[in-house]
Amino acid sequence: MPFVNIRITREGATAQQKKELIKGVTRLLEEVLGKNPKTTFVIIDEVDTDNWGIGGESVTELRKR
Amino acid sequence: MPFVNIRITREGATAQQKKELIKGVTRLLEEVLGKNPKTTFVIIDEVDTDNWGIGGESVTELRKR
Amino acid sequence: MPFVNIRITREGATAQQKKELIKGVTRLLEEVLGKNPKTTFVIIDEVDTDNWGIGGESVTELRKR
Amino acid sequence: MPFVNIRITREGATAQQKKELIKGVTRLLEEVLGKNPKTTFVIIDEVDTDNWGIGGESVTELRKR
Amino acid sequence: MPFVNIRITREGATAQQKKELIKGVTRLLEEVLGKNPKTTFVIIDEVDTDNWGIGGESVTELRKR
Amino acid sequence: MPFVNIRITREGATAQQKKELIKGVTRLLEEVLGKNPKTTFVIIDEVDTDNWGIGGESVTELRKR
Repeated sequence: MPFVNIRITREGATAQQKKELIKGVTRLLEEVLGKNPKTTFVIIDEVDTDNWGIGGESVTELRKR
Repeated sequence: MPFVNIRITREGATAQQKKELIKGVTRLLEEVLGKNPKTTFVIIDEVDTDNWGIGGESVTELRKR
Repeated sequence: MPFVNIRITREGATAQQKKELIKGVTRLLEEVLGKNPKTTFVIIDEVDTDNWGIGGESVTELRKR
Repeated sequence: MPFVNIRITREGATAQQKKELIKGVTRLLEEVLGKNPKTTFVIIDEVDTDNWGIGGESVTELRKR
Repeated sequence: MPFVNIRITREGATAQQKKELIKGVTRLLEEVLGKNPKTTFVIIDEVDTDNWGIGGESVTELRKR
Repeated sequence: MPFVNIRITREGATAQQKKELIKGVTRLLEEVLGKNPKTTFVIIDEVDTDNWGIGGESVTELRKR
């Protein structure tokens, strides 16, 4: 019964891509640890680029360069 | 000073229902562990059904069946 | 399919108390939002008092007073 | 490579203030623990006041008093 | 620069299996969303079975049946 | 009433350093956003190097180089 939280910047991930993430990570946990896919939860959080920082700067600033 | 994070799908929980969750979980922590309600934090995250997966599928897909 | 994360200081919560938290919060989500208890996840994190701060001080310091 | 998640109520924090939080917390981790700022991640989550509870009440209710 | 948090019960995952999870999820994010693996963070949390509940019961209880 | 979660690798941070993190981040939120320090929570999670990945590798592997 794993719980996976994937956090990415909100930059246009499509519903199809989210489906692939959900399917892929669920399969990975089954293959590596034998976890039952039926009780694997995946939550994707999309974060505004103003709200994500790396190297002391927001991603909004990084994307401008 | 407990911290509780409740994550649910974004499917129309009302302000009244959220109040009941906040009140109920705060009371539970007081009853079971004697925690002071004044410093109990509760955060409710509502997650789009495209962004929540179970059993390798998004909740959007599950709701269609 | 709610996901609940309860974070408390590591100060001796018993297995019995944890069971009561799990049961209580699962029931609360069923009563307030009609959520199916079978797919309600609860994770309790116990945090060392050195690692939890409130009011700019660690709980270890607060407990000494 | 620290990861910092700052959760605040959604009450008008500006892009400039978020930049200062990102810069400040990244610098703090460098000063206190010698962490490389290049691989320090900061994510700011803004939470609706209906969805944040303290003392058994939502922040929306608290703000009315 | 995705951040992935994988939470599993503490039931003997090996260092090798953890490596496979880290590698697999990093590759998945590159394949599906084109994310740079160099700035993909993965954190695995192992949770005691007393501290994980599903269906209103702890995993410790479920494992006894 | 901000909530801050700092996640670092478990590599010997002292109680004194944790105090400085708690004090520093609480002060930062007061300075930047005017948040009341009395209701600022900080939780520090220390993560084993086997359980933290970056660039598709565990930190345990990275530290060997």
